[in-house]
Amino acid sequence: MRIARFSIDGNVAFGAVEGDKPDELVLDIIKGIPFADFELSGTKVPLSKVRLLPPVLPNKVIAFGRNYAEHAKELGNEVPDAPFAFFKPSTSVIGTGDEIQYPSFSQELHHEAELAVVIGRMCREVPPERVNDVILGYTAANDVTARDVQKREKQWARAKGFDTSCPLGPWVETDLDVAAASDLGIQCTVNGQQRQLGSTSQMITSIADLIANISEAMTLLPGDVILTGTPEGVGPLQIGDEVAVSIEGIGTLTNKVVKRG
Amino acid sequence: MRIARFSIDGNVAFGAVEGDKPDELVLDIIKGIPFADFELSGTKVPLSKVRLLPPVLPNKVIAFGRNYAEHAKELGNEVPDAPFAFFKPSTSVIGTGDEIQYPSFSQELHHEAELAVVIGRMCREVPPERVNDVILGYTAANDVTARDVQKREKQWARAKGFDTSCPLGPWVETDLDVAAASDLGIQCTVNGQQRQLGSTSQMITSIADLIANISEAMTLLPGDVILTGTPEGVGPLQIGDEVAVSIEGIGTLTNKVVKRG
Repeated sequence: MRIARFSIDGNVAFGAVEGDKPDELVLDIIKGIPFADFELSGTKVPLSKVRLLPPVLPNKVIAFGRNYAEHAKELGNEVPDAPFAFFKPSTSVIGTGDEIQYPSFSQELHHEAELAVVIGRMCREVPPERVNDVILGYTAANDVTARDVQKREKQWARAKGFDTSCPLGPWVETDLDVAAASDLGIQCTVNGQQRQLGSTSQMITSIADLIANISEAMTLLPGDVILTGTPEGVGPLQIGDEVAVSIEGIGTLTNKVVKRG
Repeated sequence: MRIARFSIDGNVAFGAVEGDKPDELVLDIIKGIPFADFELSGTKVPLSKVRLLPPVLPNKVIAFGRNYAEHAKELGNEVPDAPFAFFKPSTSVIGTGDEIQYPSFSQELHHEAELAVVIGRMCREVPPERVNDVILGYTAANDVTARDVQKREKQWARAKGFDTSCPLGPWVETDLDVAAASDLGIQCTVNGQQRQLGSTSQMITSIADLIANISEAMTLLPGDVILTGTPEGVGPLQIGDEVAVSIEGIGTLTNKVVKRG
């Protein structure tokens, strides 16, 4: 099931996305929330009539760095011998169709296409073989990075945590298990031109081991999001660009870059 | 005014702390929340009859690294030429009297006594001269750090973000302006023995400039917390230790260290 979050007539709701043709998708409005037992209402609205929101409002977004070897190398970094993580704050999250606001304190924004894991239930110390039990599903993410600031500042709160730096969407695909999610094509285009092309099979540390690694330290909450690293091909975004992250079997997350007002 | 958050009979409330003698403090229960206009109810309960909670539930905790020169040097680090920040997640926050749980993935927990700024209103791009307008008040913090993990992992999500790694409290002092908060004694004791002793006047980057720095990048929300760095004297915590952070004019934050169950 593809679960979208959207606003309609000023209300926020979740809905199951039905249909195959992009222009004819319909949302079956969910009674309840997707983090507990829920039912489809049978009330349907065309997706074209609503505004999609970030598919979840995470308490925290955890992002792993340099989890694709070719990406670590392209920036002149060593491939780490163990995973390491940083946070992006909830205030950085936007949905598909929302604008990435180019902030004044950077002159070098980069796109980073990533597979995002959405946590479905509260958990800690999750063994790798149990991660399917705590995952709601998967979505696409863009770990937008102020590369110049990242190079200057030892920790990345500003470089990777500024407002609008965490596009998520378009929806959460719940029909993938962790094995299926570990072999998906991942692509980033800018103005229709391909910039990044890889596969989640290229991750250095597997999705299951990433969740074990971070949940060894901290409690994960329903709606928390884990970004799993970006394949090679990262590069600059300019004001006016349209950047799209597509993940096979999930969907496409599209955002336009504007100057922060 | 000293504003505490507490639970009583299963309910959570805010209260104004009245009195001077530690054993005779009384809470005047607040009608409403301290982030908007509020009134004191006149209903009073002895502080000894309630359980104090973290004084706020932050959406995000932003922490600045190496903001006291002598502390940077004691760990063999250079004094940074500009501030840098990292996040601690909401799941790491505990209050005074709560237990710091020593996690299994570290063998070297350290205390770091810090002045914490509590944000009172939503804001972005705050000029240094306007920070008093966005600050609700100040409290004490312990930026508990898995020093061994911090040395191994390039970004500090696990080293400084594990559950219980962010004690905050005992309450928020609202009667300090930023000038007064910039000249306060700060002390850390372990089992009654002094470990850290400094003054907030020793910060490399001022409180006002820290808030300007981070709010240039991201929106701050009511209840967000900013940790301003630790003076020299950081050192190990052992299971069974009682660690206390005292800040002049604010109060004392006390936590016992236990093995994670």
